[in-house]
Amino acid sequence: MAKKYVYKFAEGRADMRELLGGKGANLAEMTNIGLPVPQGFTVTTEACTQYYADNRKIADNIQKEIFKNLADLEKQTGKKFGDKKNPLLVSVRSGARASMPGMMDTILNLGLNSETVEGLAALTGNPRFAYDSYRRFIQMFADVVMEVPKPLFEDILDHAKHNKGVKLDTELDEHDMREIVKKFKALYKKQLKTDFPEDVKVQLILAVEAVFRSWENPRAIVYRRMNDIPSSWGTAVNIQSMVFGNMGQDCGTGVAFTRNPATGENKLYGEYLMNAQGEDVVAGIRTPSPIAELKKQNKAVYEQFEHICKTLEEHYKDMQDMEFTIEHGKLYMLQTRNGKRTAHAALKIAVDMVKAGMWTEQDALMHLEPKQLDSLLHPTFEPAALKNAKPIAQGLPASPGAASGKVCFSSAEAIERAAAGEKVVLVRLETSPEDIEGMAKAQGILTVRGGMTSHAAVVARGMGACCVSGCSAVHVDEEKRYIEVNGKKYTDKDYISIDGLTGNVYGEQLPSVPASLSGDFGKIMAWADKYRALGVRTNADNPRDAKQAYEFGAEGVGLCRTEHMFFEADRIMAVREMIVSKTVEERKKALEKILPMQRKDFEGIYKEMKGNPVTIRLLDPPLHEFLPHTDAEIRELAKEMGLKFSELKATVEYLHEFNPMLGHRGCRLCVTYPEIAEMQTRAIIEAAIKVKKEKGYNITPEIMVPLVGEKKELDYVRDYIVKTADEVIKKAKVDMHYKVGTMIEIPRAALTADKIAETAEFFSFGTNDLTQMTYGFSRDDAGKFLKDYYAKKIFEQDPFARIDENGVGKLVDMAVKLGRSTRKDLKCGICGEHGGDPATIEFCHRVGLTYVSCSPFRVPIARLAAAQANIRYPRG
Amino acid sequence: MAKKYVYKFAEGRADMRELLGGKGANLAEMTNIGLPVPQGFTVTTEACTQYYADNRKIADNIQKEIFKNLADLEKQTGKKFGDKKNPLLVSVRSGARASMPGMMDTILNLGLNSETVEGLAALTGNPRFAYDSYRRFIQMFADVVMEVPKPLFEDILDHAKHNKGVKLDTELDEHDMREIVKKFKALYKKQLKTDFPEDVKVQLILAVEAVFRSWENPRAIVYRRMNDIPSSWGTAVNIQSMVFGNMGQDCGTGVAFTRNPATGENKLYGEYLMNAQGEDVVAGIRTPSPIAELKKQNKAVYEQFEHICKTLEEHYKDMQDMEFTIEHGKLYMLQTRNGKRTAHAALKIAVDMVKAGMWTEQDALMHLEPKQLDSLLHPTFEPAALKNAKPIAQGLPASPGAASGKVCFSSAEAIERAAAGEKVVLVRLETSPEDIEGMAKAQGILTVRGGMTSHAAVVARGMGACCVSGCSAVHVDEEKRYIEVNGKKYTDKDYISIDGLTGNVYGEQLPSVPASLSGDFGKIMAWADKYRALGVRTNADNPRDAKQAYEFGAEGVGLCRTEHMFFEADRIMAVREMIVSKTVEERKKALEKILPMQRKDFEGIYKEMKGNPVTIRLLDPPLHEFLPHTDAEIRELAKEMGLKFSELKATVEYLHEFNPMLGHRGCRLCVTYPEIAEMQTRAIIEAAIKVKKEKGYNITPEIMVPLVGEKKELDYVRDYIVKTADEVIKKAKVDMHYKVGTMIEIPRAALTADKIAETAEFFSFGTNDLTQMTYGFSRDDAGKFLKDYYAKKIFEQDPFARIDENGVGKLVDMAVKLGRSTRKDLKCGICGEHGGDPATIEFCHRVGLTYVSCSPFRVPIARLAAAQANIRYPRG
Repeated sequence: MAKKYVYKFAEGRADMRELLGGKGANLAEMTNIGLPVPQGFTVTTEACTQYYADNRKIADNIQKEIFKNLADLEKQTGKKFGDKKNPLLVSVRSGARASMPGMMDTILNLGLNSETVEGLAALTGNPRFAYDSYRRFIQMFADVVMEVPKPLFEDILDHAKHNKGVKLDTELDEHDMREIVKKFKALYKKQLKTDFPEDVKVQLILAVEAVFRSWENPRAIVYRRMNDIPSSWGTAVNIQSMVFGNMGQDCGTGVAFTRNPATGENKLYGEYLMNAQGEDVVAGIRTPSPIAELKKQNKAVYEQFEHICKTLEEHYKDMQDMEFTIEHGKLYMLQTRNGKRTAHAALKIAVDMVKAGMWTEQDALMHLEPKQLDSLLHPTFEPAALKNAKPIAQGLPASPGAASGKVCFSSAEAIERAAAGEKVVLVRLETSPEDIEGMAKAQGILTVRGGMTSHAAVVARGMGACCVSGCSAVHVDEEKRYIEVNGKKYTDKDYISIDGLTGNVYGEQLPSVPASLSGDFGKIMAWADKYRALGVRTNADNPRDAKQAYEFGAEGVGLCRTEHMFFEADRIMAVREMIVSKTVEERKKALEKILPMQRKDFEGIYKEMKGNPVTIRLLDPPLHEFLPHTDAEIRELAKEMGLKFSELKATVEYLHEFNPMLGHRGCRLCVTYPEIAEMQTRAIIEAAIKVKKEKGYNITPEIMVPLVGEKKELDYVRDYIVKTADEVIKKAKVDMHYKVGTMIEIPRAALTADKIAETAEFFSFGTNDLTQMTYGFSRDDAGKFLKDYYAKKIFEQDPFARIDENGVGKLVDMAVKLGRSTRKDLKCGICGEHGGDPATIEFCHRVGLTYVSCSPFRVPIARLAAAQANIRYPRG
Repeated sequence: MAKKYVYKFAEGRADMRELLGGKGANLAEMTNIGLPVPQGFTVTTEACTQYYADNRKIADNIQKEIFKNLADLEKQTGKKFGDKKNPLLVSVRSGARASMPGMMDTILNLGLNSETVEGLAALTGNPRFAYDSYRRFIQMFADVVMEVPKPLFEDILDHAKHNKGVKLDTELDEHDMREIVKKFKALYKKQLKTDFPEDVKVQLILAVEAVFRSWENPRAIVYRRMNDIPSSWGTAVNIQSMVFGNMGQDCGTGVAFTRNPATGENKLYGEYLMNAQGEDVVAGIRTPSPIAELKKQNKAVYEQFEHICKTLEEHYKDMQDMEFTIEHGKLYMLQTRNGKRTAHAALKIAVDMVKAGMWTEQDALMHLEPKQLDSLLHPTFEPAALKNAKPIAQGLPASPGAASGKVCFSSAEAIERAAAGEKVVLVRLETSPEDIEGMAKAQGILTVRGGMTSHAAVVARGMGACCVSGCSAVHVDEEKRYIEVNGKKYTDKDYISIDGLTGNVYGEQLPSVPASLSGDFGKIMAWADKYRALGVRTNADNPRDAKQAYEFGAEGVGLCRTEHMFFEADRIMAVREMIVSKTVEERKKALEKILPMQRKDFEGIYKEMKGNPVTIRLLDPPLHEFLPHTDAEIRELAKEMGLKFSELKATVEYLHEFNPMLGHRGCRLCVTYPEIAEMQTRAIIEAAIKVKKEKGYNITPEIMVPLVGEKKELDYVRDYIVKTADEVIKKAKVDMHYKVGTMIEIPRAALTADKIAETAEFFSFGTNDLTQMTYGFSRDDAGKFLKDYYAKKIFEQDPFARIDENGVGKLVDMAVKLGRSTRKDLKCGICGEHGGDPATIEFCHRVGLTYVSCSPFRVPIARLAAAQANIRYPRG
């Protein structure tokens, strides 16, 4: 049997959205539950795919099927397509599987031509209406189907109003409209060297093609990438008989939500306009009325609508977002879909639905979008202030939050001015590890270069600080101490504000409101914890982050990076002394200076984690990161350290690497300098003993060796760790256990995980590096060419944000299986950036990881995503 | 049953070498075929492993077994260990599974103490001999077992000779020897604070332990690494009753080969000394006589020896290297083993053995060491000249050959001086891609930095040029135009010579002899081709290399790197123009200039390959490699190109990458700039058409897309290739096929090879990059820390020289299987440096690759190794 490419509304169902698109499936469903829907049919998403497969042509058999259904629609409506007397008019609208609001194109009033327009005029007794509809159709068709710029048509309309001395379209009469139609047709011909099509069948096929084509327009592509929608899905096309809200004062149109989409309040919410078509509601020329007004204006229709709303919410078991039209006092439903809502509203609706017995707790969890929670955890600008402010530039929304402060040019300056009580926004070309302290002290960070995964972005997200990155419109003159945006200068006395949710930059101070975690939030999180199987830990390098994460519900630290501590001002000199050491003894002496400071950091983290497990990673970055690189800086540091310039310069040169990412770092450092592992182990164990004694927490430190690629590497470093740890424990005469494990972040480690698990007591997947090496990308460099990869549709998503299941994920899966073939109960976690991504969390759940670890502000997201994963794929 | 740790010689066999070591197994075998062997027993390699497992202790049960066998030996010899009257003396010698000549320690005359020495004196009637033996034993024992420096003893001996006014040890009498023994014992006590052990059993156990310990001495570790011998094998210990070649003029000792090990001539070859112990032959104080002399001196013994040689060669079916001792006219065989031989001799012996019916052709192939062939393919210094020359420094033997020339400091200078007919050796700190032309024109290359896999080394091996790298004793002053080695300066008027086989550098001109491939070489190669299943191709970037490889038997080009061509002086400017282009049109214009030059290169290669397949890889390196990096150079180039300095500088900065190895290179370039793929495809196809028309070769060009990690990447580039190629072919109206395939060099490509094979028509494993990414090492940086990895035994071999089967190899195996699951007959090759490594070639054979591709000078090695692999693991 040949494939069916067209479905009448009465033939579809809500669960056919893959084939019919969301809009089509819902029109079908509404038809079937007896709601008043203007009838029509849907051309399937498969027809769209076929259109592209056929090299952008609609095959004959599909065209035939369309016209067959059109004939049936004629019978149903008693009207005829292209008929002079009683013409059938239709709308042609896109409808993808996932909702893509405003992304796709729509054509109304299709079926009008110079003959049918007269029929419509006669039939309605309203020639002005008929010609108004016709001119609207011509403009939409020309714009959407033929790509004639809209403003050209609007000029004609404006001109007509100007000539007549009126302001509103409604003030133009029949005659004016006839003239405008003439002028529109002339413009069409001039632009396209062909007449506006009289043949209504040609109109229809061209319009369907245009909807298919719109699936690949740049807006749609960008939206899909942002929302992880594959381009292969395609869009359906809905062809529906027209009803008119603009045929007089007993007509109207509107949009409404069954509940308030901003607050979640359980009360009908929306607006409508009488004597108008849908586009007028959006256009903003006339001000629509709140939906409650309708009750006064037409009680019967309002009550019918209210009833339909209740029916739909109960039927779909979710808050609905609807479009309706009233034609001569008769109500028609044009669309319904699950309504988008703010995070705040989403929580309230979920809790209310459970309370009302409409949802189970699991339903509630599944209805939430984990990523949306993020906006609840950060301050935001006051909506009113935001409405009036005009952004001076836009960068990337690198880390959410709202920050206002005076312009500040360096980390040191931020620290100093913050200490003096000033609020500053740190503006840098790009940030580097030395900037961390200043970033923490500033209200927010604005960078000129760098993407969503640049240093600034990653660190800011980690600390929950607001950050806008890659804002290339900003020019920084650090020396003259100003920034310039579009010719306007801002000095260190001027305020700027940055919005980490939108990437907007403002040239003024804006008031913000702090995050408040309402009772609904707590309830949802408790449900999430009840249903998830994955543990959720946090990545935290200092007590402040650990505290924040603990408050957000982290059950331990999955990754404590010790190098961030090394950069702090009070210890970087000791670190540098260690690096320039010429003998083991010198190096040990320098390490002795760092020991008490490291120990103190760990104590703080253990205390904040209150006995929960803490995984601490040994020093990871290449040593040259701790040294300056320009001659001037080297000269200065040499002086400070009492070294010869040439000596220090030689060290810097010796440490230079062509590919530092693949260089002398991770456990390779400890192989060369085992005394580093010794010092760090001592700090880790001594701190644990001290906190155990002070607080009584039963701490089992987890010491993690990074960048292992070969079992013997781990064996070598482990020997030093065990020797040191056992000595410290013995000397302290306490009972303390500890674990030695490894990062799996090198492909070879995953491939040989069975061997490595002979030594490693736990695995933690470092998916940042694993992704870099599996793809052969450097994250620092990939930004430049990945934009081409997105544009050319080679990649549809950022492999550093969401795990690449086919490649990197295969290695993770393999490593878990191999590791557990050696050590049955091997604890496996993930501590890369991916650990906070919901899709990745689901993957981690599926491959059997023990926990995910993410930055503090991702912890609530991870808890929810983990619950969803376990509801979707219950663990045995 | 308890494990047996000790075997009498009569209990062993030649095929037990894993357990008994080579020496022990051969002593056993000689015993069993009735040859005169002083009896004894072997402590197994398992006892050695156990010794290390027991924390460097010989377990009681093993000690008991040793003394039980010693008791049996006493019965057999009628002597008693430690007996005053008829003492049994033994030698204690190491014997590993693989021959490690000179690497391990030996102790002779064990069993002597202040009592048994008198017994020996009485028994032999030769007190001088007894005390001479005793002092030798003390010295050896002190040195080998207790690590007392040998020179301290030699000082005493020298002193005694000096006092007496004599030159030779033999001129010292009994009295002198007694005095020396006293002084040796005193020295021993002074050094070790303990008396020299009188208890002969203590002597024995200490000696066995010392042999076990010697398995881990630095010499042994280095030797093992160089020869791929795992440290887990351990060494056996042979305890054998002593016979003496130094008891009078009817005694003697010698070493001999059944055939000439230098030339392969089938004639007994060796030397001996009468009245001497083995060490005297080696020491070089007395000059030994050629073995033929023995016939005159003692015909009976000579004939017996000749007969034994024949027996042994027939028994072992190989040329033997033997040690023997004559004690009072009686011949004893102390050792036999397959003799080491020069490459030249190896070929002759193999061919002779087959001629004589002793070996099959397969036997002959299996007896050859593929790596040894290399020395036959390059010139070498005249042995006589080499003997007298003293090296001034030593670097790494990066690429074999022998080169003499005047010192030269830059590539440009090398080109100029070579054109003027001068012979020069290019001396550089390190080389870079721009040096290639100069490297080709120089006699050889000497670099101060860089390892065996540095740029200089890789390129030199590729072109078959002699190269010594990493010679840090050389200081280059390019400006003042001299190099300095150990305080001596060499200017551009001075000759130096470098030996690529040894890494030696000489401060003078040395004569060399060219490579000559004798008839034996041809015969062996023909046999290799007959028995191998793997194809052998070459990596060749230019017609010269292609020609050389074709002469060496390459069956095609497996990798033609197009970027090397881009660096040549006549086109680098066009390449730079392409890079600074701001529009596609500008870029296409620049590419147009390169097109005819590329086409010409390809024509040359096709011609040299005479219709064999040629795989051409599209541009691979990041574009910044083609631009200068210092401001001065940028300024100069900007001037030359008519650009602003700031403009060019901005381009250089934009192209800068943190990790260029993981940056914008490979197919990523073609994704951004598909016009590069178009130009290169055009050149590849047009050249093939031209050569086909001219020469009638039926060429099927293979276009290889590098650095693919995702199928869609390959799809994207392939579309441009196919479109261009089809157009060219259509226009030329010829019948030409071509293939589009990919490098598998990114872990993700291997992991998703089933998808990639949907598009790729062939795979070629780029194991250099695959190794770098699988290990997370950058080859350019790893040298610095890998030395620690070898020292600490984390790695026992260089993963860039021999494929890492457990990690990288697992990916290769997986990719072949996945690829062929999609495309059954998928052609799979390897084109990394590993392609010329015999162990890797065996691996490639086992996982079912179609061919290996290696540098021209490795082609004969690969042919032999491929044959050996197929003999060892025959393909179905």
